[in-house]
Amino acid sequence: MADIAKRFASNPILRPQDVKPSLEGLQVECLLNPGAFRYQGKTALLLRVAERPQQKEGIVSTPILDPEAAGGIRILEFRRDDPDLIDEGDPRAFKYKGQTYLTTLSHLRLAWSEDGVNFRVDESPTMLGQGPLESFGIEDCRVTEIEGTFYLTYTAVSPYGIGVSMSSTTDWQHFTHHGMIIPPTNKDNALFPEKIGDYYYILHRPSGFGIGGSYIWLSRSPDLLHWGEHTCLAVTRPGMWDSARVGAGASPVRTAAGWLEIYHGADEQHRYCLGALLLDADNPAKVLARSREPIMEPIMDYEKAGFFGNVVFTNGMVVDGDQITLYYGASDEVVCGATISMQEMIHFQSQMGG
Amino acid sequence: MADIAKRFASNPILRPQDVKPSLEGLQVECLLNPGAFRYQGKTALLLRVAERPQQKEGIVSTPILDPEAAGGIRILEFRRDDPDLIDEGDPRAFKYKGQTYLTTLSHLRLAWSEDGVNFRVDESPTMLGQGPLESFGIEDCRVTEIEGTFYLTYTAVSPYGIGVSMSSTTDWQHFTHHGMIIPPTNKDNALFPEKIGDYYYILHRPSGFGIGGSYIWLSRSPDLLHWGEHTCLAVTRPGMWDSARVGAGASPVRTAAGWLEIYHGADEQHRYCLGALLLDADNPAKVLARSREPIMEPIMDYEKAGFFGNVVFTNGMVVDGDQITLYYGASDEVVCGATISMQEMIHFQSQMGG
Repeated sequence: MADIAKRFASNPILRPQDVKPSLEGLQVECLLNPGAFRYQGKTALLLRVAERPQQKEGIVSTPILDPEAAGGIRILEFRRDDPDLIDEGDPRAFKYKGQTYLTTLSHLRLAWSEDGVNFRVDESPTMLGQGPLESFGIEDCRVTEIEGTFYLTYTAVSPYGIGVSMSSTTDWQHFTHHGMIIPPTNKDNALFPEKIGDYYYILHRPSGFGIGGSYIWLSRSPDLLHWGEHTCLAVTRPGMWDSARVGAGASPVRTAAGWLEIYHGADEQHRYCLGALLLDADNPAKVLARSREPIMEPIMDYEKAGFFGNVVFTNGMVVDGDQITLYYGASDEVVCGATISMQEMIHFQSQMGG
Repeated sequence: MADIAKRFASNPILRPQDVKPSLEGLQVECLLNPGAFRYQGKTALLLRVAERPQQKEGIVSTPILDPEAAGGIRILEFRRDDPDLIDEGDPRAFKYKGQTYLTTLSHLRLAWSEDGVNFRVDESPTMLGQGPLESFGIEDCRVTEIEGTFYLTYTAVSPYGIGVSMSSTTDWQHFTHHGMIIPPTNKDNALFPEKIGDYYYILHRPSGFGIGGSYIWLSRSPDLLHWGEHTCLAVTRPGMWDSARVGAGASPVRTAAGWLEIYHGADEQHRYCLGALLLDADNPAKVLARSREPIMEPIMDYEKAGFFGNVVFTNGMVVDGDQITLYYGASDEVVCGATISMQEMIHFQSQMGG
């Protein structure tokens, strides 16, 4: 079995029922894909909390952000037998009159831990979508500390498209919204935690339309706000575990061998595994090594079945010496943890020809 | 009829047979979508020249750029009866083993004129695609003069995707390649010809995948190389002439009323018309007016039939006082010209409620 992740015995460590809904009438449907960081001696997760209205017989509904609605959220309801409704069986989305809607609305919420295993979730949202480019919610936030400031880069969803937006904070109380930094269609961003030469760098995942695919790209910026020099870093590999889509996970980690990036890959059956990329320390556009076999696969019950099964997906980790503690979303429903030894991973990769 | 463009009597002004192929064995299939500018008292077009190999019975072929091939171009050939070949009837593209290929390879070539009507085309290409992100060619270049430098922003096509890349020149002899400035999937870019406040601005067209559509976006840059603060400027309008796709044309023109941008819109039948957007002079994210009816439609024979019929598409124009001379691609095959009076356009727009 191609899996070197040591899962927490207490997995899943957080489930939807552990989180208080943000508004009466909503229920937390999924808890997923947290960013992770250390702050004032604690380990923190910035969870993606996906909510939807209580389900009613014969009705498809979705919440959307609307500053003019009570509580800031408007519920759209459609009859299941409405001929303008198209439900293709994806639990995450449906279409009405040509417009795609998500079934859930996501916000970001902090959870704190003394030991990195037992977390208590804040009572209310840390960050909601704001403005017209985030009206369908904000998702899958990466947290990257650069020179004492935490940068929150996340997927912003709205009828205008799916792109990467950024906020920052130094104290986790006050946030500055920096707007959309990578235009649609884009997600799976990961800032490098330091400048390399004169530039900041980011990994991101455009979606090809017509030509191209769901590949990992690299871009650079003088100021974290404006990005250019876009290049393609890693493509999908036909016949392998990452044949359909690839996307960056959390921020790359500087190691003696280069930048280590744990990324996700999905195949045509939408099975999501994790693998690793090793990038040149001085020139991150240069890929030194890439996993032939996944380092982690959906094998546990909570990884194989759920809101959207057969998914392990990470965008948050913390590092202690040789040990990576990986926080991950399982089956798009619960949050789990696992540890990986970097030495073991490098040994495993070289054995597998990666 | 909603059309205020006065077409040149000599249209089409340039046809494929007016252009010498770049390499023996290739034929010029389409001549289309030129950038336009003035230089040293002349009017110049930067044409998109689309070439393909001589057609053979039972064979589908395409040229791709390959620095290691003789002449820098490698011809791929597939048998029409190959089960891995998927030809969905679009003359512009086909699929083989899941990879989309264009039927033609485009380069950019200059044509010069004393009177703005009669052009002579250079004997050889001005700019070919270069590097892995342009191996399927470069297309639909906008030419924008900013502070004495001409910026060439164009669609870069490769198996990695379709994005916007940039080169610059001051003398039309030496070019600097600046790489990809807007990541996939993107095209239909238009630089503003001057800074507004502290920033340069660009219009561009991401393609929505899953959520979003083919809409016109606006972004800003401190240096023309790195772009951010992406916002959506104009979306498609159901039931109207621009119901399926919209995209910017040439660089916006500063007028007393604001920035005037002539853009294209297509409907579900892929009929391409032109309309106008008026943007606030100091805040181009603010749309002051937009054409309800097109200002130009495919009505002439050469606009209705050709390589891809029912298309008028512009990305190049020159301005003299009140008169815009619009250069445009007709039916993705030939290049034409027309003039429009800005006064008449504004009068027409207000009459039409635009």
